[in-house]
Amino acid sequence: MKSELISVGTEILLGEILNTDAQFLAGELSELGIDVYHQSVVGDNAGRLAEALKTALSRSDIVIASGGLGPTPDDITKEVIAETMGEKLILHEESLRRMQEYFNRVHREMCKNNIKQAMLPEHCIVLNNNNGTAPGCIIEKDGKTVIMLPGPPAELTRMFSESVRPYLEKRSEDKLFTRTYHIFGKGESAVAAELSELMEKNTNPTVAPYAKTGEVHLRLGAKAKSQSEADKIMESADKRIRQSFGRYIYSTDGKSLPEVVFSKLLKAGKTICTAESCTGGLIAKTITDFPGSSGIFSEGYVTYSNEAKIKNLGVKRETLQSFGAVSEETAGEMAEGAARVSGADIGVSVTGIAGPDGGTPEKPVGLVFIAVCFGGRTEVRRLELNGDRDKIRYLTMLHVFSLINERL
Amino acid sequence: MKSELISVGTEILLGEILNTDAQFLAGELSELGIDVYHQSVVGDNAGRLAEALKTALSRSDIVIASGGLGPTPDDITKEVIAETMGEKLILHEESLRRMQEYFNRVHREMCKNNIKQAMLPEHCIVLNNNNGTAPGCIIEKDGKTVIMLPGPPAELTRMFSESVRPYLEKRSEDKLFTRTYHIFGKGESAVAAELSELMEKNTNPTVAPYAKTGEVHLRLGAKAKSQSEADKIMESADKRIRQSFGRYIYSTDGKSLPEVVFSKLLKAGKTICTAESCTGGLIAKTITDFPGSSGIFSEGYVTYSNEAKIKNLGVKRETLQSFGAVSEETAGEMAEGAARVSGADIGVSVTGIAGPDGGTPEKPVGLVFIAVCFGGRTEVRRLELNGDRDKIRYLTMLHVFSLINERL
Repeated sequence: MKSELISVGTEILLGEILNTDAQFLAGELSELGIDVYHQSVVGDNAGRLAEALKTALSRSDIVIASGGLGPTPDDITKEVIAETMGEKLILHEESLRRMQEYFNRVHREMCKNNIKQAMLPEHCIVLNNNNGTAPGCIIEKDGKTVIMLPGPPAELTRMFSESVRPYLEKRSEDKLFTRTYHIFGKGESAVAAELSELMEKNTNPTVAPYAKTGEVHLRLGAKAKSQSEADKIMESADKRIRQSFGRYIYSTDGKSLPEVVFSKLLKAGKTICTAESCTGGLIAKTITDFPGSSGIFSEGYVTYSNEAKIKNLGVKRETLQSFGAVSEETAGEMAEGAARVSGADIGVSVTGIAGPDGGTPEKPVGLVFIAVCFGGRTEVRRLELNGDRDKIRYLTMLHVFSLINERL
Repeated sequence: MKSELISVGTEILLGEILNTDAQFLAGELSELGIDVYHQSVVGDNAGRLAEALKTALSRSDIVIASGGLGPTPDDITKEVIAETMGEKLILHEESLRRMQEYFNRVHREMCKNNIKQAMLPEHCIVLNNNNGTAPGCIIEKDGKTVIMLPGPPAELTRMFSESVRPYLEKRSEDKLFTRTYHIFGKGESAVAAELSELMEKNTNPTVAPYAKTGEVHLRLGAKAKSQSEADKIMESADKRIRQSFGRYIYSTDGKSLPEVVFSKLLKAGKTICTAESCTGGLIAKTITDFPGSSGIFSEGYVTYSNEAKIKNLGVKRETLQSFGAVSEETAGEMAEGAARVSGADIGVSVTGIAGPDGGTPEKPVGLVFIAVCFGGRTEVRRLELNGDRDKIRYLTMLHVFSLINERL
């Protein structure tokens, strides 16, 4: 079963809002095993909307249009679609009553122009709106289905989950089951090269790598009736993937690298202290992104200047003088200092040149040293990173959590 | 001049990623005064991409395709577009060299399949990629222009700003000149109500408020040939806006609140030290987001536990015992301690309950105290914030910078 999405709204075309509705709908449809081959966005313009609808109906079984069900004159989705499909709009008393109730609940006066929202195609399945005023509807005609949903995400997502998903579940055979391998330490091209023959087959299951900043997400998907059937379909590909990237895979359940490390620390009851130079607090901030971080994190140091490194972490002045702030030696002493002054089980440190300035031929922008001091052993890693300041700091953060992950 | 966007990527059709590229490009194009009437998304499928391109070329002058420039076999954008436009792909030595340099810098082996990324249309303007490997390109043919950009946002946004925007600026006649008033301390509806009559006219200039997390961005836009002409068109609306929100407007040049404060600190040569509890390093991280931060920031403290507050900032044990860690008194002593131990001109502090747990009837989630110690005077502010953990931490950060801004 083929479907496609038409998002209606000038504010999307102008880049004023992000099209989160399309992502939500696409995700739901692929979970239902319904193919989505096209998404399009048109403004509040009758001609272009009608044209987009005709194109969509010519190549898809199901068209979901979102947005443009509001009370104002520039909300034209229902009018245009009804006309294009030869449907008359008539007042739907029940919806008008529900709308009146809604306004009573929120203690607001219902405007005359809201009545427009209760005008629905003569032959349609009405979709109640439990988060707003505009009802949605489904038109089934000549073997095609058009579903109209309101644009506001809170209204669209609730209406879809309550009414549209059950409607579509009845109609779809197979569901898509996916498992995503989060891989750190291998580039997309390396992953792709390694799995080329798996990817070429690419029928059922399908394998697709996605490059993320600093990591690769490898998605394995199987169309099946049930999870257990999907697991069978994925079995050999799963084995192959784990053989190739075993130690680089840090999660298969959607957890981020910091999240994985955080859970491990909590589970192991290991406390951690951060000593950051170029990341300037990003590592500590990331650890404390997670509720319950006080269980493993009691303090962190941002030591930007040499003096701060000496005063707060006990880094030796000679070390800074002979090797410099951005050096293996300084990183090591920072991590050890962090563990010592905090009494934490693990001390981690970062010192580097995030740029754009401050680079030299010997120590270019992107040169970063990270260290982990744990169980009496300090491990330092030299990174040579590429990108702008934000990217270098972000990649450093990932490398730090990866190093901790290896040590746990 | 009409343009449209084609986003290429199965991961968008599957709802795995949000199409932020389309929003970015749409926003940039409308700023340039280039109309965007259509956006579409197709998967990594040659037939459907070619069809989408032909449709786009039939109705638009400029087509921007993003995504599918990667090294893997399912990256087909360049191949399909080149073929559709009757262009041969040939190896672009310069790009191959740049790519080789990139891999050397990041110390990764360049795979054979990366060479594919240096294959470019015989007649095209090459767009260098300074955040990754895949170059972009511009094909001009038969009065139509097709621009191909890599999908990863960090690569796309940088390539657009560095190469595409200047290219398009040369081509567009009437530009849209905008001035965005960043307003902190007033809600969107309050702003909209205050400016209703301005917004109703909404021809040239146009006025539109956008709700952002914790603040409102009010965009004033004028279509004009030159900046000076635009300034004239905006003049009276500008006066009106400043009358209404004068003291709430912290920037009109797109600068964020932290950026504004950072520049003021640099200019005034004032140094700052952070003492953070619930924000866990976010304030320090935000200060060090900016190049040159070492000029005003030498150290910061994340004191999550009471002991850390006592040890590192000299907060009195009695204060913690009698008033608690989340209190006006503790916030004040933290800020004073930060200034004292660091010798910085300004000490700022945060202590609060970010949630989701840890709230009590007297001290609910969202209760945060922030303090600034500057010029011998300590000012503490009590915040009662709503939202999840991330939002509470983010809003706290904005309030801290706003308080510093008032004191400078």
